[in-house]
Amino acid sequence: MKIGVLGTGVVGEAIATALISKGHNVMMGSRSAGNEKAKSWKKKAGEHASEGTFNDAALHGELIFICLNGEYTLEAIIGVNAENLTNKIVVDITNPLDFTQGMPPRILEDFRIESLGEQVQSAIPQAYVVKALNTINYNLMVDARKVAGGNHNIFICGNDPDAKNKVKHFLVDNFHWTPEGLVDLGDIKAARCTEAIVPFWVMVWQSLGTPLFNFKVVK
Amino acid sequence: MKIGVLGTGVVGEAIATALISKGHNVMMGSRSAGNEKAKSWKKKAGEHASEGTFNDAALHGELIFICLNGEYTLEAIIGVNAENLTNKIVVDITNPLDFTQGMPPRILEDFRIESLGEQVQSAIPQAYVVKALNTINYNLMVDARKVAGGNHNIFICGNDPDAKNKVKHFLVDNFHWTPEGLVDLGDIKAARCTEAIVPFWVMVWQSLGTPLFNFKVVK
Repeated sequence: MKIGVLGTGVVGEAIATALISKGHNVMMGSRSAGNEKAKSWKKKAGEHASEGTFNDAALHGELIFICLNGEYTLEAIIGVNAENLTNKIVVDITNPLDFTQGMPPRILEDFRIESLGEQVQSAIPQAYVVKALNTINYNLMVDARKVAGGNHNIFICGNDPDAKNKVKHFLVDNFHWTPEGLVDLGDIKAARCTEAIVPFWVMVWQSLGTPLFNFKVVK
Repeated sequence: MKIGVLGTGVVGEAIATALISKGHNVMMGSRSAGNEKAKSWKKKAGEHASEGTFNDAALHGELIFICLNGEYTLEAIIGVNAENLTNKIVVDITNPLDFTQGMPPRILEDFRIESLGEQVQSAIPQAYVVKALNTINYNLMVDARKVAGGNHNIFICGNDPDAKNKVKHFLVDNFHWTPEGLVDLGDIKAARCTEAIVPFWVMVWQSLGTPLFNFKVVK
């Protein structure tokens, strides 16, 4: 499958690398083509890897992952040609966190009422935005088995049921999530909640001393 | 032990009833003495139960539980005579939620930066405020075994380590929590995080169809 990954940070690199290892054809997108981190990744990742602008990566992908710093996500998305995202599924992994005011991090002011996930969907109404994977460490995103044999939960939301289903299957097929591990919280408005728990996740990380943990819903 | 429970709603009644069953001497406090719900509870709860004002209940208690609607908590606390709370441990179970804007609920505007837990501690600096139990359903608060045999987590914070330890022991001794189930997130500032996850809890409740669930941290 042709996949566009927007972002060259640790999350983008983890997602892109995992997808290459599963046989996908992945383009990593950044603000400008020739980004040093993207070039270095491409070199390591081999023949199915490429790099370009955000716009190039969106055009390339049948499926897009947004792996950007929450603060710059909307700006990046708005800069992509609308037709390159038309009818595509966009998995939004971003978090609008502000670490500048000390711990715990805060949600950036612009996203305290309407979440970043909702604002991404509003910015690209021609795409199907699915918020997912944003509540865990990037190493765990791409291999659920790294914690408790994969027996734990992530929380998915989005307006289009078919797009959510496709993303669920993709996560099961590529990142070792179990179907029962994927909890559907409804439409994209639920991103308010899945973004709002990330400062809590950070505090639990501090308390445990490792980011390799997750939450499991128990009844 | 003499315990004051501020609040006559479902949370206050659950806590007060469970503590009576453990042999404690419990006074339920409300805005004015003779509250119908408090009188009705007292009648059912028997000879170790009493009712009075918030101030009466604070005076009565060696340990105080705040089980009020988040919106009215500060007002109630500020109305209590300062000396009735001096050097006492106050367990704050409240959540500053606004359900008037539809789902998911929002955090009330006054508590989006500085949490209700912090503001309660600031309002009563002569007391040791411990934020606990606010992330679960009231039936589960008082008997951890009601979900997954008690094998799940709650998150505790507060400025005084000794007060937190006493609350942990109290929860283990009275409400069947296991020591490993109690995750300490540090000082009262962490209440920002444990309050912020409650809208998420509400969405998971909707998704599961039952409030009798909890989160378990898995590594």
